[in-house]
Amino acid sequence: MLVIMDLNSPRSDVEKVVEKIRSLGCTPHEIPGSSKLAIGITGQTNKLDEEYFQLMPSVQEVVRVTKKYKLVSRQMKNEDTVIEFDNTEIGSQELFICAGPCSVESRDQIHDIAGQLSEMGVKFLRAGAYKPRSSPYAFQGLKEKGLEYLAEVKVKYGLKIVTEVLNTESLPAVAQTADILQIGARNMQNFTLLVEAGTTKKPILLKRGMSATVEDLLLSAEYILAQDNYNVILCERGIRTFENSTRNTLDLNAVPVVKKHSHLPIIVDPSHGVGIWDKVPAMAMASIAAGADGLIIEVHHKPEEALSDGYQSLTPGQFKSLLEKLKELAQVVGRKIS
Amino acid sequence: MLVIMDLNSPRSDVEKVVEKIRSLGCTPHEIPGSSKLAIGITGQTNKLDEEYFQLMPSVQEVVRVTKKYKLVSRQMKNEDTVIEFDNTEIGSQELFICAGPCSVESRDQIHDIAGQLSEMGVKFLRAGAYKPRSSPYAFQGLKEKGLEYLAEVKVKYGLKIVTEVLNTESLPAVAQTADILQIGARNMQNFTLLVEAGTTKKPILLKRGMSATVEDLLLSAEYILAQDNYNVILCERGIRTFENSTRNTLDLNAVPVVKKHSHLPIIVDPSHGVGIWDKVPAMAMASIAAGADGLIIEVHHKPEEALSDGYQSLTPGQFKSLLEKLKELAQVVGRKIS
Amino acid sequence: MLVIMDLNSPRSDVEKVVEKIRSLGCTPHEIPGSSKLAIGITGQTNKLDEEYFQLMPSVQEVVRVTKKYKLVSRQMKNEDTVIEFDNTEIGSQELFICAGPCSVESRDQIHDIAGQLSEMGVKFLRAGAYKPRSSPYAFQGLKEKGLEYLAEVKVKYGLKIVTEVLNTESLPAVAQTADILQIGARNMQNFTLLVEAGTTKKPILLKRGMSATVEDLLLSAEYILAQDNYNVILCERGIRTFENSTRNTLDLNAVPVVKKHSHLPIIVDPSHGVGIWDKVPAMAMASIAAGADGLIIEVHHKPEEALSDGYQSLTPGQFKSLLEKLKELAQVVGRKIS
Amino acid sequence: MLVIMDLNSPRSDVEKVVEKIRSLGCTPHEIPGSSKLAIGITGQTNKLDEEYFQLMPSVQEVVRVTKKYKLVSRQMKNEDTVIEFDNTEIGSQELFICAGPCSVESRDQIHDIAGQLSEMGVKFLRAGAYKPRSSPYAFQGLKEKGLEYLAEVKVKYGLKIVTEVLNTESLPAVAQTADILQIGARNMQNFTLLVEAGTTKKPILLKRGMSATVEDLLLSAEYILAQDNYNVILCERGIRTFENSTRNTLDLNAVPVVKKHSHLPIIVDPSHGVGIWDKVPAMAMASIAAGADGLIIEVHHKPEEALSDGYQSLTPGQFKSLLEKLKELAQVVGRKIS
Repeated sequence: MLVIMDLNSPRSDVEKVVEKIRSLGCTPHEIPGSSKLAIGITGQTNKLDEEYFQLMPSVQEVVRVTKKYKLVSRQMKNEDTVIEFDNTEIGSQELFICAGPCSVESRDQIHDIAGQLSEMGVKFLRAGAYKPRSSPYAFQGLKEKGLEYLAEVKVKYGLKIVTEVLNTESLPAVAQTADILQIGARNMQNFTLLVEAGTTKKPILLKRGMSATVEDLLLSAEYILAQDNYNVILCERGIRTFENSTRNTLDLNAVPVVKKHSHLPIIVDPSHGVGIWDKVPAMAMASIAAGADGLIIEVHHKPEEALSDGYQSLTPGQFKSLLEKLKELAQVVGRKIS
Repeated sequence: MLVIMDLNSPRSDVEKVVEKIRSLGCTPHEIPGSSKLAIGITGQTNKLDEEYFQLMPSVQEVVRVTKKYKLVSRQMKNEDTVIEFDNTEIGSQELFICAGPCSVESRDQIHDIAGQLSEMGVKFLRAGAYKPRSSPYAFQGLKEKGLEYLAEVKVKYGLKIVTEVLNTESLPAVAQTADILQIGARNMQNFTLLVEAGTTKKPILLKRGMSATVEDLLLSAEYILAQDNYNVILCERGIRTFENSTRNTLDLNAVPVVKKHSHLPIIVDPSHGVGIWDKVPAMAMASIAAGADGLIIEVHHKPEEALSDGYQSLTPGQFKSLLEKLKELAQVVGRKIS
Repeated sequence: MLVIMDLNSPRSDVEKVVEKIRSLGCTPHEIPGSSKLAIGITGQTNKLDEEYFQLMPSVQEVVRVTKKYKLVSRQMKNEDTVIEFDNTEIGSQELFICAGPCSVESRDQIHDIAGQLSEMGVKFLRAGAYKPRSSPYAFQGLKEKGLEYLAEVKVKYGLKIVTEVLNTESLPAVAQTADILQIGARNMQNFTLLVEAGTTKKPILLKRGMSATVEDLLLSAEYILAQDNYNVILCERGIRTFENSTRNTLDLNAVPVVKKHSHLPIIVDPSHGVGIWDKVPAMAMASIAAGADGLIIEVHHKPEEALSDGYQSLTPGQFKSLLEKLKELAQVVGRKIS
Repeated sequence: MLVIMDLNSPRSDVEKVVEKIRSLGCTPHEIPGSSKLAIGITGQTNKLDEEYFQLMPSVQEVVRVTKKYKLVSRQMKNEDTVIEFDNTEIGSQELFICAGPCSVESRDQIHDIAGQLSEMGVKFLRAGAYKPRSSPYAFQGLKEKGLEYLAEVKVKYGLKIVTEVLNTESLPAVAQTADILQIGARNMQNFTLLVEAGTTKKPILLKRGMSATVEDLLLSAEYILAQDNYNVILCERGIRTFENSTRNTLDLNAVPVVKKHSHLPIIVDPSHGVGIWDKVPAMAMASIAAGADGLIIEVHHKPEEALSDGYQSLTPGQFKSLLEKLKELAQVVGRKIS
């Protein structure tokens, strides 16, 4: 349920609505728009009656949200969410371009790649310090050492760091270095992690699970927004199907579907979505043409020596060529890459 | 197996190779390229030895094709296939744009839509006279009457007709009106129909089955090429997955995958691939950005009254806006729509 | 829609209802039950009104069928369909056990296997004379020769023949030899073939397509019943999913789902459903425990030399052991194998 | 890699091998069999050479394990694992039957159901105190209160408790009450939880993820065994496919596939695998016929009032009837339910 008030309502009127909601055992969420203030209500809203709020001062309208997800829905907030921090915007006209290796492998490796990407004007560096691996015997990341190297390149090149958090135990350490916390496909329904990461108020890049519907993805995002953290970036990265000529089936339909139902930005990871480097540029282009707010792409200076996912990584040179094409394409769809 | 000869080899040398292949119980297929003549060999090629051909006059090289599909593969023919007929090219720089209603519903309906599309410069009209329907009680098309109306608009507006052939019984009638024979997803592995349609030598638009891998699609195309009909246009139209926010999951990964392994043109049907009209423009754009050679899009002058698939049809006005955007996008990816 | 009459209604009353239905542009289907006569109505029934029939003599009730499929539904016919011919019953307490090689490969091969199966008491022999193959270069069956050999073993061993019909062209020839016409997974939505095969009035074994929902399967069966051929045996044979440790994912859920919604018998093909011989016995047992009316199992005397699908075939010895276990199991679920 | 020694080797010889493995930077796992002692080696085994161990005293053989999973594989341990505790065996001839409600909803509810199940001879009670839910607004379980009630019925009825652990934070509390820790489908690749739960040495019931291959499931189990906890019960509970007549597609093929490649017991959850109560008995029977080591089934005394998953729960009466049939079936497949 949603209580719509004038954006310039006296604070005391807003407080009265907030109190009323709490007194009914529910949780209020203030969502300021360009001309109105919406107060989202979550919890056992089926017990609530619109009439409770309709006659309160400054209240203009009371609306039932019909989707299972509430705070992430366009019914709650019609305007696109733009995540702003440190002179950066995600979800605005400017496309979010994030690149880097699958894993931090060594100090030299991450400095080398970070330096090359920085020169190309890339602002967001992706690289995993903690890696979730199907096998316990596969390389699991450099862990604390990896975070340390990321902290170095963050200072040296002024790059913003996007790195995965695997569990609540390492969350404080990861949150100290990361500008954006990534929650991976395998953890999309690790609800404890969603809640804990949400409370840090850091922006969170939430990847779609391999068998998650778009509705599941939005419901997982809802867990984060319910912590009053609206800084969520959704990410399509491919689903599991019978097709085996690619690692996953990138579901670009998800882009316009999310855009219709949610105000949150959505980006695409074509590297995991295809799984073979030579098809990544085509799918990166397709993602932006489909209306995605950005891309996260694996780039490795020596893909053939990568400790994980080398076969899906572009070289810096290949990535640079792609970036040029993306800049041209951005203009056609009313976006830009500066 | 593939015997590579000089393009200017004396005809008698070519004939000798062809005879030799036939004498070994296999089938020769002449595939002229820009500088060389390839003679593809199909049949029980495992019994053949490269040495049979290596010393024959004008033979330059003998190559084993390692894929299950042969004639459709880039190993057999490296250059992109361009289908040419009546001053039209499919698979060249010019994008193939085909639009129209799901079904021919009445003389007025098809004349109305054809007229509007023709004015926009569209050259290919799609519309089904025979409709494959899951239920025997659903509208099955106007059949002969539908073909008759299509023949009228073909003459009146100079449009080329793309229409589905459902079975060998109606193939002669459909082939008389159609410029391009469409074989639908449900018939992708109707091998009898593939062979019979192939022998007409008409261009064939072959849609990917709902659970067909890209390899299956290429093997089905192989049935047509094996009739010495190289005029095949592949079409991605969405596969079946667990995701239910869209009718199908459009697998755009298939575009770069096909481009890598086959010389045949591949187009996309975003209308079936998404199944809801408001997401069609985004996915049409994505298709071209991914490298597709064209689009087939459902357009209906009154979608809410359509006898089939109205919810996935654009209005002529919506299609016109999309076409403008597609023209801009085409330039970015080195293509054009004239 | 369904008009329920007394089973002993005067024929003239029945004729009046039938005439009335025809006069309204719809098709009547007489479905006799144990105590009542139902007259199913198919066609544009949305134009019909219950009142048209309610006051006609001998009419007891008029019922709307809410499913998309009509004649196959339990709403139309509540009692299980038992297919009877030549002292055989399918769908009754007796389980339908059909075994044999994927393809007829030679006179010796089919005589050898038929002889061994006959000795074990098997009554139905499966073997393909016409084979649908993804690749045009794979073995496509012995065709007419194969039918000839099947006709021989039919006489010699008194076996009933279950063999696939691939197209309408070969339907007359196949129908002459076959006791049961098999329509394969790839042709489940070849509606022309369904209709033509239906008109032969032969029992038809209809396999579920690789990406067909249970509803799709029932709608395809509806095409056959709409030809007034109620002798349809449904067959679950595995669907396509992401799992790759087996050839297909056998969906045994389909058995109780079909049993709930349809009166038609349903059997299982564990050979294709698993695709590896050593897991076939477990899944054959599971099928019967789930309530299936029978099994169709690949048996080959020399699986390692089979021209198709050898890796999923049991040897006669393995099949015999399985048959013994199945007999014990049958008793637990109220069935028998005699 | 696997070092095979005589079961009666002097302890000092075993220690030498163990030390050698550690000195090479790998981890030894002692796996006693009926006649031999296998010492599994995990870690960077690609650096190891068979010759390092072949000449050591009491060593009989050194074997490379070719699968990605090691400790769970039959290559490492050929004999079926039987989990023994408190006079109970899981994985032996006796089938594991576990029943109960989806969630603990109240003291009365769980006492009522526990009492009824206990009377039927059921030894394992399932019920969630902590519930993972797609939506943050759905009932999330009674948490500590739920554990308290479970502890009560454990004492009162002598039932063993199977309950889900959602995160490492609540692991100590859950482990205190639970006899078997359940790790749910959504957490199958929550590797941190797998490791932490593994170190408790409690038996763990590990459910297959909705898009996990059998190989993924075995690799997740490997995380637990790598903590030297061999008490793992695998559980098939349905995967996500396009079929929507059931909640999930129960993949019973997984049972013989797991049995072939792993020594671990595998059970089936037909309640989640089908999602509709009236098809649960058929699929429970099918599971045992396929060779499963047991079942976990939802039973609720008032399914229509259940706070979660009521539509997939059997009533105690329905469960009792099923149990009788299962007892008969067990005998046919060489198992028993006492």
